[in-house]
Parts: sequence; structure tokens; C-alpha cells
Amino acid sequence: MQFHDHGYVSGDPRVQPAAGTGLDRPDELPDEVDVLVVGTGPAGMITAAQLSQFPQVTTRIIDRRAGRLTIGQADGIQPRSVETFQAFGFAWRIAEESYHVAEVCFWHPDPADGTRIVRGERTPDDPSGISEFPHLYVNQARVLDYFAEFMANAPTRMTPDYGYEFRDLEIAADGEHPVTVHLVRTSGECTGQERLVRAKYVVGADGAHSGVRRSIGCTSRGGSAAHAWGVMDVLAVTDFPDIRRKCAIQSGSGGSILLIPREGGQLFRMYVDLGEVRPENTGALRSTTVEQIIGHAQAILRPYTLDVVDVAWHSVYEVGHRVTDRFDDVPLEELGTRDPRVFIEGDACHTHSAKAGQGMNVSMQDGFNLGWKLGYVLSGRSPQSLLATYSAERQVIAQNLIDFDRQWSTLMAKKPEEFADQAELADFYVQTTEFLFGFMTQYPPSMLVAEPTHQALAAGFPVGKRFKSARVVRVADANPLHLGHQHRADGRWRVYAFADGAAAGQASALTAWAEWMSSSPDSPVLAHSRPGDDLDAVLDVLVVYQQRHVDVDVSAVPELFRPRTGPFRLIDHENVFATHPDDDIFELRGVDRAGCVVVVRPDQYVAAVLPLDATAELAAFFRQHLLVQDRQPVG
Amino acid sequence: MQFHDHGYVSGDPRVQPAAGTGLDRPDELPDEVDVLVVGTGPAGMITAAQLSQFPQVTTRIIDRRAGRLTIGQADGIQPRSVETFQAFGFAWRIAEESYHVAEVCFWHPDPADGTRIVRGERTPDDPSGISEFPHLYVNQARVLDYFAEFMANAPTRMTPDYGYEFRDLEIAADGEHPVTVHLVRTSGECTGQERLVRAKYVVGADGAHSGVRRSIGCTSRGGSAAHAWGVMDVLAVTDFPDIRRKCAIQSGSGGSILLIPREGGQLFRMYVDLGEVRPENTGALRSTTVEQIIGHAQAILRPYTLDVVDVAWHSVYEVGHRVTDRFDDVPLEELGTRDPRVFIEGDACHTHSAKAGQGMNVSMQDGFNLGWKLGYVLSGRSPQSLLATYSAERQVIAQNLIDFDRQWSTLMAKKPEEFADQAELADFYVQTTEFLFGFMTQYPPSMLVAEPTHQALAAGFPVGKRFKSARVVRVADANPLHLGHQHRADGRWRVYAFADGAAAGQASALTAWAEWMSSSPDSPVLAHSRPGDDLDAVLDVLVVYQQRHVDVDVSAVPELFRPRTGPFRLIDHENVFATHPDDDIFELRGVDRAGCVVVVRPDQYVAAVLPLDATAELAAFFRQHLLVQDRQPVG
Repeated sequence: MQFHDHGYVSGDPRVQPAAGTGLDRPDELPDEVDVLVVGTGPAGMITAAQLSQFPQVTTRIIDRRAGRLTIGQADGIQPRSVETFQAFGFAWRIAEESYHVAEVCFWHPDPADGTRIVRGERTPDDPSGISEFPHLYVNQARVLDYFAEFMANAPTRMTPDYGYEFRDLEIAADGEHPVTVHLVRTSGECTGQERLVRAKYVVGADGAHSGVRRSIGCTSRGGSAAHAWGVMDVLAVTDFPDIRRKCAIQSGSGGSILLIPREGGQLFRMYVDLGEVRPENTGALRSTTVEQIIGHAQAILRPYTLDVVDVAWHSVYEVGHRVTDRFDDVPLEELGTRDPRVFIEGDACHTHSAKAGQGMNVSMQDGFNLGWKLGYVLSGRSPQSLLATYSAERQVIAQNLIDFDRQWSTLMAKKPEEFADQAELADFYVQTTEFLFGFMTQYPPSMLVAEPTHQALAAGFPVGKRFKSARVVRVADANPLHLGHQHRADGRWRVYAFADGAAAGQASALTAWAEWMSSSPDSPVLAHSRPGDDLDAVLDVLVVYQQRHVDVDVSAVPELFRPRTGPFRLIDHENVFATHPDDDIFELRGVDRAGCVVVVRPDQYVAAVLPLDATAELAAFFRQHLLVQDRQPVG
Repeated sequence: MQFHDHGYVSGDPRVQPAAGTGLDRPDELPDEVDVLVVGTGPAGMITAAQLSQFPQVTTRIIDRRAGRLTIGQADGIQPRSVETFQAFGFAWRIAEESYHVAEVCFWHPDPADGTRIVRGERTPDDPSGISEFPHLYVNQARVLDYFAEFMANAPTRMTPDYGYEFRDLEIAADGEHPVTVHLVRTSGECTGQERLVRAKYVVGADGAHSGVRRSIGCTSRGGSAAHAWGVMDVLAVTDFPDIRRKCAIQSGSGGSILLIPREGGQLFRMYVDLGEVRPENTGALRSTTVEQIIGHAQAILRPYTLDVVDVAWHSVYEVGHRVTDRFDDVPLEELGTRDPRVFIEGDACHTHSAKAGQGMNVSMQDGFNLGWKLGYVLSGRSPQSLLATYSAERQVIAQNLIDFDRQWSTLMAKKPEEFADQAELADFYVQTTEFLFGFMTQYPPSMLVAEPTHQALAAGFPVGKRFKSARVVRVADANPLHLGHQHRADGRWRVYAFADGAAAGQASALTAWAEWMSSSPDSPVLAHSRPGDDLDAVLDVLVVYQQRHVDVDVSAVPELFRPRTGPFRLIDHENVFATHPDDDIFELRGVDRAGCVVVVRPDQYVAAVLPLDATAELAAFFRQHLLVQDRQPVG
């Protein structure tokens, strides 16, 4: 964490100095905004949190609720989301209060007595050690709280505007604020009053029944799986021995339970199979009481007892699988003819079963993807055409999710006798860990993602996938740390220079690259920064040497990697790394000993792998999506 | 973290439900209190924070400052303190914003040119891996902030009362509130007004010039080392390559610097040698300006440059070593004839050089030692005689500290030519790591610490030293975790039962012990708990099996280790552990395979190691310091 560099900070360093729109942010929702985010769920909140780091952008986020979410809804946090929380500074704090999934158990009917269940397979949740981050369960409300804290501490001092319901919007062909949004107050003295807000961009993160989606004419395709589930968060006394382990339970009667232990040591969630939805039982299913759900659960758990003493939340739903064909207001047939103004995210785009624990996670990646792009366009750093990449990148991810979830929830709803092999469910779970953990996303080449021509130079950093961290040692203070965890959600790109074998300061490919980066007018750090910008304002350039830290002479490291920043022009000491004695990142990630450059997007996805001498390619890559600014070379 | 067990908690689970004195805590300092803590430094704050967990006790903490400390003073956080912060729930949060000491460098005059310095020894800060916790530097103000947050979130909802200066106190021979304290308001409209507060106990954590110490007639012995130092927290541009590493720097001119990198990546502290204090230069030294300190530093650092751009704080002081002969109001000749009413902690008891980074740490252990003892006595759990153990245990620790610090600061002040071996300072540093890290404290046998008769049953848990954690697996949820980190600063004792080799539920020494603990009227869990108490209200009883977690049938574990607690009588699932596959705690800590019982005090020190069949000894140990309460055996 870097602070004190503008002078001594006495209080919590997580509170950043107010700047830009945060200096005089009005309490009331203004009539004109740059971005209006509709909905304070995980997708909307991460978009707003990311935008809170862009001081010149006016972002407001509204919700029809009168205040923060208090209970219910999603609870699964995959490791990719924890990795994302790390960038927002709250990974370990939320982990501390969450349930950690270490093991998953699969229960089946007892072959000797079909009225009883017995434990079958038992597997570590992450058998192959895919991530250094944990897999968590915690109420969505706490995720939202942490994003709210992050944005309140951000330079823009953002807080949600509760009590506004979205009604409709119109998009004008031109004007500074071409989107006119109709809102209605839902709480307080002004309940029922209408409001007009004009925005440059609107983000619809308003859930499965999204009004924003409707207003831009998107239709969601898919259907219901005709299977109903009851879900409940409860406290109970039980002799079921795995009550604190994640379990998939199949009973002889055909009913099944997905058991999700939750934060705090006592609460757990159960998804209880309520059977097929047929026309004649639709009404009965929808009016299922929590007592009935408990009754089903008790029957499935036999011979174990379940004495529910407190119900925190419950709901009944039918599994549906729907996805929209586009995530913005530009119809597919008009693609490329105009830039989008309105976007949808999360449940507004894709709905599916809750049981793979994916919904909140994929929604947050939607929001993370869109947030920085809006920030760059509105700050004049990138062309508006950047915004079309949001729908292009995320729609296919949603389609993959729906396909996966259809498989998983079909498996979950199968009767025991329908399985060819009892272990089918367990095997599927283990085989799909990388997907379940959120690491299968790979964006195809675009203005933001280079062709993987030079992938062989860093096989462990696949272009288009998220940058998989590894340990290194920071030279300045000899601290071992995870390279990827230094990437904060500050909106900046990362450019990692992996050195060739020469020592710091010797003539080498790295030294030549650093020289070009510091001095060539084509260098992206010069071409895309403005007068008054620190050199690392948009691109944070870091170096990893092949040597051990004691063999890196920091005085000889090119100044590119030790930029002078802030009002005191202090030397940034934290961008020079060496290999970790136990985990050589060059070995672990297959980085060529001739060195290379790995470019990582603000949302942590690898955008390019290039040789150190491919300076023209590097410059050209950034010019695809960053505007050339008016800055003189440093001299 | 355990919560939701009283019903669903929607917000931050770190905010505990208000209880007892926290339900209607007056904003204004009342006329009568149970405990009045004078001084909001690290010692006073940890005492108050510990007492904030005792809902029936009225504790107030005052300071003459008008508000929180903003800058300066101590910054060294040894691993034992981070371990303590873990118990108070903020270890990782403060670590995240702190400087981590990974390596220490020793600089000497260049043998070829005495006007220049060169790097000599270079050592990891923790070469032998003494602690799983880091060694940190961060401003004391942040430590105080975290304690303040902890006590505000505690059942008692405590906040410091700023703006009261201690003047004097008198102790009456009897009465409910025998200590009368004279205070004066130092800020706000009432500045200058006098206040009387009557207290059952007073804790003087009011620093080196302690008024509480004076009022109880303690004298501090020792003297000044006649050596002066300048200290400054600064931002600077420098080409000194180790500016982000802890360094001891000795120049050819005889001057020396202790360099302490600080939180945030830029700030650092320098202790700069100002030379010997002789009668003729005392005045000049005391009026040394920060410019002069910087000048000295620049001279010592040659050939490197130091361009200080911002001074956050600075001070000049002479090294003194003083310790008081007792830490309470009972003169040594009256020991045992009456119980103490007034205590002193921290700098009020011991002052020394700042450069071993010990002061704040030892002070916090003073405060941790005293806090729970006051809580037990005031809650009617322990006899008043318990309070005499505070001075008995801590005074000798202070004496050890003074002795150590005299050695260290004498070494630091030596001229290069006075060293027999250039590496003497580095060798001393490495050899004394355990002391520097805070782990050498070992309390002798007393009413609180059993004779180490059975030490051989658990050689790695020395009686009287703090419980050294090791990894285990929690059976209920298969989570690997550190056993010692589960010990929160909730005021409870921990009783760890290390099982003999039998599986859970089989007849065994462990099963017999658990049966006795659950049912014998002599059992400490029954003898010392009250009607209405949960069984784990005072003693938290945990079990560690020798098996791997998959081989522990949780249904067969004695109910002693799965107590029913809280309003819903839920089963506590979190007290049953198995060995970690990579780190068998029985091997690591030399625990006998026949099992044993390890008793740990609320301040994390091992109080007893006993065989599983020594039930009479266990009962007798607790009766030394816990009062027998009126509870019927569970039946």
C-alpha cells in the first residue's frame, strides 16, 4: 500500500485524498451525470467502485431500495472474485468473515437401505491447487458493503443514491448527455415524485427483470428447466456429520439437497429439490412454505435429524436459463456504425440456477470489464469505440455460463438411478474446478487483446486470460510477495518487463527497451500521458529480474522502473522485482530467458505478450485503444 | 469468527451485540467507575480494549490530549505484538498498511576510505523462522486506532474520554470505590475545571512522567546513558541503495544512524547519533534543530546523498534507562498484607532507548497482562489477590528489557574502532532475535502458572511462555488453520486436550477426561461457571486428535468439545481439531502420544501442562485463582 507520498497521512491510509468530483460532491442526485448506474447489486457496485477511481468522472449509482441490502440472494465467492477483491483492497477482510470451502462431500442413498443416505465421495474443493485465493461463502450484502466502503474512500467519495426506481430511458442521436432517464422516488417524503436525469452513459445492473434491458429492446433467450427449488438460510441443530461441509446430497426418494455452510460457524443454506414443475402443480410449488421446505429437507436427510431453530431467509424459484443476445443498446445489425450509450450487466443479461455459485461472480466480472472502459473514454484517454468491446467480450462468457449451468443443474436434479456411475456428480465437480473458480474466461483478439503470436515467450500467461500471479521478491525491501497482488483496481494498465539474463545496468535487451520506453516519442508512456501526469499515470511499468534480490543493484536499474512521482518527485521504489528463492516465476510461468513484455489490462487480463525488441508492436498495440496525448518526451 | 448464533447479523460481524454497561453507556465520564485508565497510549488502550469484553465492568479511559494521537512516537511492532493483535482481530489489517522487515543491513566505514560507508553484513530479519507473524513498522497512532475500533465494537461500546488530565489520587482503606482521582479538564468549554472520579481500580498508563506513579510513591531507578540522539520521520530523495531496508549504519567519523523504513513506501525514520552529552553541551544538544539532524545524517551517509523534502516529525532525546521497583501501590514490605488498587504500566514503569523497537511492545504486554485480571476480579470470577500477580510478573520483564536495551544501545553508540569484530553488531542482532521478537518472556510458577512438573508431556509448550501456535485441521469443515490464532482476546481461558492415540469415541484417557470434565462437581467447567452461563463461558475446551481429519468421526467426539451455546442451544462445531497433513502438531511441539492437557491463560501464556488423568491437579490449579460458583452439574 503506497501513501504518505503527498505528505504524512495520520489516519486510515485506505481513505484516499479527495479529488476532482469528490471535492464538492453533491449529496443529491444531480440532473446531469457522466454515468448513471442502475442497481446496487454486485455488478453495478463494482462498476461504480471502479469508476470511483476516476476523479474527473461524475458517476452516480441508484437503487429502488431505501437502503443497503440486508439479507438473502447470492453467497458464492469464487477465487477469481477474491482475486478481484484483492485489487479493491478487501480480499482478506472479507475472507476472514466468510466460510472457506475446503472439502466437498457427496451423499447417496444407502445401497443396503434406500430410505437412508450415506457419504460417498469426498474431495478437496481445489484438488489441483488452482488458486492461492480461497473459495468462500458469505452473504452478498457484505460484498456490497465492502464495495461501498471502497468507493466512499475513493477520491470521488461516492455513495449510492437509494430510493430511485428506473422507469424508462431515451437515447438522443447527439448532445453532451444524450441519454434521458426517467426515475421515480420510492422512499422518503418525495415518494412517487418523478425525476429526469440526463447521462452520457447508463449502466443497467437492475437484475433479472431489468427495466434498462427492456428499454433498449434486448430480449433474453432461453427458458425454464421446469424444476423448482426451495432455498433457505437457517440455524439448526442436527446430527448430520457434514453440516459444516459443502455437500451434494441425493436421497433414495429422488429428492436432493445442495448444502452450503455459511459464514459465522452456524448458519447454512440449503437448496432443496421441490420436484418438477408441471402445469397442474405450478401454483402449489410457488406457494411452498418454509415449513414445507424444511419437511422436504428432513425427509432427504434421513436417518439424520434436522431441527431448524431460526430461519434467516427463504425463497422458492424455478430454474431458468436465459441470456440476451447483446449487452448494449447497439443492435447486432448496427454493430460498428455507432458507439453504445447504454449497457446491461449481471442478471440483466444472464439468469440461471444459483447452485453452481456463479451468478454474483460472473456479474462482477461484467462490471469490472465495463467500469474502466467507461473511465478511460470519459477521461479522454480512449476512443468511444472502446465501449463496443464490452458486449463483444462478455456476451460469449454469459453463453458459456448458461451452457455450463444447464449441465450442472441437470446433473443435480437427476435421480440416483439415472446416473451411470454414482461418482458422476463428484467427477464433474472436480473436472470443472477451473471453470467453477472463474478462471476459464479468455478474451479473443481485439483492439484490447493482441494476437497470441508471441505466446511461447510466456506460456504461463495466456493472452486473453487473467494474469495468474506468482511470487517474487521486491528488491527495495527484500519482501517476498505475489506479483499479481500488487495490481490494485486503480484503473491503470500494467506493463511487466521480464528481463533477459543480464544483470541490472548491463547493456541488454531490457536496458535497450527501457531506454526506448523512457525516451522515444513512440513510447506508450510518453505518447499516452499528458503534461502534468506522472510517468506512471496510465501505464505502471514494472521489471522482474532473473537474479535473486541480493544480486540486483538497485542503483543500476533503469529509471523507467524507478519513476519520480507526486508533488515531492519521490522515487517509487516498488516496481523492481527479483525471483523468489522457492518459486522462480520464470520457471513457473514458462517465461523465456531472453525476456519479454507482458501487458495486463486494468481488469487484470493479459492483453499482450511481446519480445523486448518489439517496440513498434508495443506502441501500435496501445494506439489501438489509447489516444495520443500532448506530452513532450522526458529529457 | 463466530456470529449469527444469536440470529442473523446483517452488518459487520466485528460489531458485537451491545451488552451490560454498553447498553446505556453515558457519553460523559461518570463520577464512579470500576476502572479508570489514565492515558491512551498502547498500554492503556490494550487494557481498556481487554476490559471492553467484560460487559459488567464499567471502564473509562482518559487522556489529557483533546483527541486521538496523530503522529510520532513508537513505530516498532514485534511479532509477539502482531500475535496479540490477531487476538484482537486486526493483525492482518494493520500488517497490510505497515512496513514489513524482511532484511537488515549493516553498513561500516569503507576500509579503503574512512570518509565513505560500505555495506557489510546483510541478514534476514528472522533467520530461523521464529514466528509466523511479521515484524512491522507503523506509526503508533494506527495501533491506537485499531484498539479504539475494537473497544467501540465490543459489548461495552467503549470510547476514550479525551481532555482530562490526571492530577492526583488518594486511596481509602475501604469502601466500594476506594480510589479518589482528581482530574482537570484540558480542552473544550470546561477547560480548567476540576473533576473528582471515584474508582475501584486505577491504571496509570500515563507515560514516562507518570502522575499516577508519583501519586503512589513509586520511584524509578536508573539513569541516563549520556548519549543523545535525534529522531526524524521524513520523506526524501536519496541514492542510498538500502533506503527501504532496516539498516544500522556506522560512519568513519564515529556517527551512526539507525534507519527504519516505514509504512507507505516512502516515509522513513532515522535515529541519528548526536554524540555524548557532557555538561558543557547539554543545552546545545537539546536545542538541536531538524536541519542539524539532517546535516548529521548527510555526513554519516557519505558518499550517498540525502535530500529531505518533507519532515513529518522529529525529536531529540537522551537515552535513559529507568525502571520502577514495583508496578502497583503496595510497597514491597507490605506485599501480601493488602491487595493493590492502583497500577502503572508501560513507560510509567520502564523507559529506555527507542532503538531496539521494544517499548510499545513490552507496554502492550503489560496492559494485556493486567486487563483480564481486572476483568475477572470485577466480574466476581477471581479473588482480589489475583491482582498482585501483575506487578510480580511484569516488573522482572521490565528489568530484563532495560538490561537488554543497555547492551544494544551501548553497541549502537560504539565507534567503529571500538569493535573487536566488525560483525559484532550483526551477530548480536541475530542472536537475540527471540528477545527482539518478544518471545523470551517466561512467567515463573504462581497461582496462575503451575510448576512445570509435567513439561515433558509437551516440551514445545513451555509453561510460563506464550502458547506457540501450530497448524491443525478443523474437523467440522476440513479447514487448515493455526490453532493459536483461534484464541481471541475474549477474556476466556483455553484448555487444549491433546488426545491419546484412540479414535474419537473409543474408551481412552481422553474419553475419561472428557467425561470427568462434563460431569464431576470438581470439574473446572462446572465449578467456575454460573447458572445461565454457557459451559464455555470461562473455559474454552478444545480437543486435538492425533488422526487426520477424515479419520475423526465427529459424531463420536465427546459432547464436552461440542458444547451447546447461545439462545438457540446450537452446537459449537469449532473446537474439534485433527493433525495437519504437513505439520503434525504432536511432532512439532513434542506432545506426548499418550496425550495431555495444556492450559492457556487469557493473555495467551501457557499456565499448565498436565497428564489427562491428573484431574485433581487440574481442578486444584483453577481453584487457586478462580472462585467456585454456584452451578449444578449438567445432567
